[in-house]
Amino acid sequence: MPLLNSGIFSNTDSTDKTVRSLGESEVIERIRQWLGSVTPATPLGIGDDCAIIETPAGMKQLLTTDSITYGQHIDGSVGAKDAGSKLIKRNVSDIAAMGGEPGPALLNLLMGPDVSIKWLEAFISGVKEASARYRISIVGGDMSELEAGHFSAALTLLGTAKQKPLLRHTAAISDWIFVTGTLGGSILGKHYAFEPRLIEGQWLAKQEEVTSMMDLTDGLGKDLAAILPDHASAEIETKRLPISSDARTFEQQDGKAAVEHAFCDGEDYELLFTLSTAADIDLFESDWKKEFPELELSRIGRITKAHPEGRYIDATTKKPLNWATGFEHFKKR
Amino acid sequence: MPLLNSGIFSNTDSTDKTVRSLGESEVIERIRQWLGSVTPATPLGIGDDCAIIETPAGMKQLLTTDSITYGQHIDGSVGAKDAGSKLIKRNVSDIAAMGGEPGPALLNLLMGPDVSIKWLEAFISGVKEASARYRISIVGGDMSELEAGHFSAALTLLGTAKQKPLLRHTAAISDWIFVTGTLGGSILGKHYAFEPRLIEGQWLAKQEEVTSMMDLTDGLGKDLAAILPDHASAEIETKRLPISSDARTFEQQDGKAAVEHAFCDGEDYELLFTLSTAADIDLFESDWKKEFPELELSRIGRITKAHPEGRYIDATTKKPLNWATGFEHFKKR
Repeated sequence: MPLLNSGIFSNTDSTDKTVRSLGESEVIERIRQWLGSVTPATPLGIGDDCAIIETPAGMKQLLTTDSITYGQHIDGSVGAKDAGSKLIKRNVSDIAAMGGEPGPALLNLLMGPDVSIKWLEAFISGVKEASARYRISIVGGDMSELEAGHFSAALTLLGTAKQKPLLRHTAAISDWIFVTGTLGGSILGKHYAFEPRLIEGQWLAKQEEVTSMMDLTDGLGKDLAAILPDHASAEIETKRLPISSDARTFEQQDGKAAVEHAFCDGEDYELLFTLSTAADIDLFESDWKKEFPELELSRIGRITKAHPEGRYIDATTKKPLNWATGFEHFKKR
Repeated sequence: MPLLNSGIFSNTDSTDKTVRSLGESEVIERIRQWLGSVTPATPLGIGDDCAIIETPAGMKQLLTTDSITYGQHIDGSVGAKDAGSKLIKRNVSDIAAMGGEPGPALLNLLMGPDVSIKWLEAFISGVKEASARYRISIVGGDMSELEAGHFSAALTLLGTAKQKPLLRHTAAISDWIFVTGTLGGSILGKHYAFEPRLIEGQWLAKQEEVTSMMDLTDGLGKDLAAILPDHASAEIETKRLPISSDARTFEQQDGKAAVEHAFCDGEDYELLFTLSTAADIDLFESDWKKEFPELELSRIGRITKAHPEGRYIDATTKKPLNWATGFEHFKKR
């Protein structure tokens, strides 16, 4: 290989900006700007759980991609089969967040030459089991070589939406904010043992009063910002935040309050959605209970006009919630 | 991070099988077996240039993915903009190989935190220019973190086929074998300056006598095997192999015959296709010349019944062609 440092990587003593110095959100925003006219505006372009493709036949297709990288999403503590299953489920969760149904998929593998065949077989068995469960066909893919000690797998998943897909950016002032399940501490196990909320997402997409939806991957504190309209805040009823037992266990370990874990930890893979103020909440909640008696549903707050003190406000004290918000990739931790 | 060696990577002194000890083709074959019922048989599954998706509306969609990885496909000698452009063109070439038209795409980036923003901007400008040229929309994507010093970008490209897509596995005994352009020595420049044969592929897909098609990525010597029927050989008229000027330059540098470079080097991104013996060759070739006066077309041989001495036979001497065949990823070189 020619010269190693050819401008692609910056030395630590360089003043060049790097992916780390900007952080993930800013890098994504710049890429969107650089792409300019070749990337369409939301909802057809970058920025929702899935891209929506209008086909000539008038059908709506969903398209999403998500990856599993050694050192970032998985490590030696996760079994190979669980890792393969997680790759499928992460993508199914994106389809669920639009109310869609998963379809065919492509599998991209990037691997060092030292990846063990035994491990890879177990990884693929996880891919297979989860694919069968969600009726996904693996129709193709690609394989690339990385240096020894590296592994990354990306899945691209197509889906279809029977009804209008639920988007992120369509909530309004006064809408109620809901989450499914319980939140926080997923690192203790749920981050690979989760169940994507596929049938729940499809059911929610059929309810006309549901105004927006997304899945929780980076933590409620970060993801909630994506569904807030411009010039709006969220009033959170902190006592209604559904705290998982893992968040409580985590509190014992690191001393950070369980409710803060529920608000800030990533990889919950629950649904975050908003309900129009025109809806009959009691009826909606009782319909939910009939459909999904075993999955908790929590009304955690409401969208309000922009509050002078911040985007997230404690509904009781009207003071800003001063928890660190979510997970920013690439930044030094 | 917990224990580094958790079974995903094998030590060099281990007797475990690894991706390197099996090589790319065998790993792909095993993955196909492991996936079993969740991967459909060709042409709907793994093994052609694109997957073909039958939509409910009866339209045929194409789906392909290909990546650019630092250290494998690009290095410090390739400009960032050329690398971005190459990522798009590699995928367009796969759509071309089915006779399709490119559509929306997803961009996955895997990057070390030290990737320079200046370099990334130039890379994306290459993605943008090439996307605009082939009327591709970047509708979404994903970003993951790798260790410092690493960069990989994968594109997943959707396409549509107006007519029946041309497959790889549909050639018959006695069909003529053709290639477009000139072959060999692409490492001297063409491997990123190439032009995907999109309009040529679409034209070929409309000609009823064309029986199979693929694009040349791993080298004619390896790729030709993919279109040979079982129990068949290819008789190659070595004097008709279209040798590029780069292959001749390369011969001066490494002493390997230019014709061997043409047969064995990778990344030509030309089309390899077969023509039925029922076709009027003279008419076909003159039609080609009218449509594409500037792109060479070479009839390089013919498919025959299995020859006892090998799959590739010199048409003149009837002896096996004893050139090393193509590029096998992961194997030590």
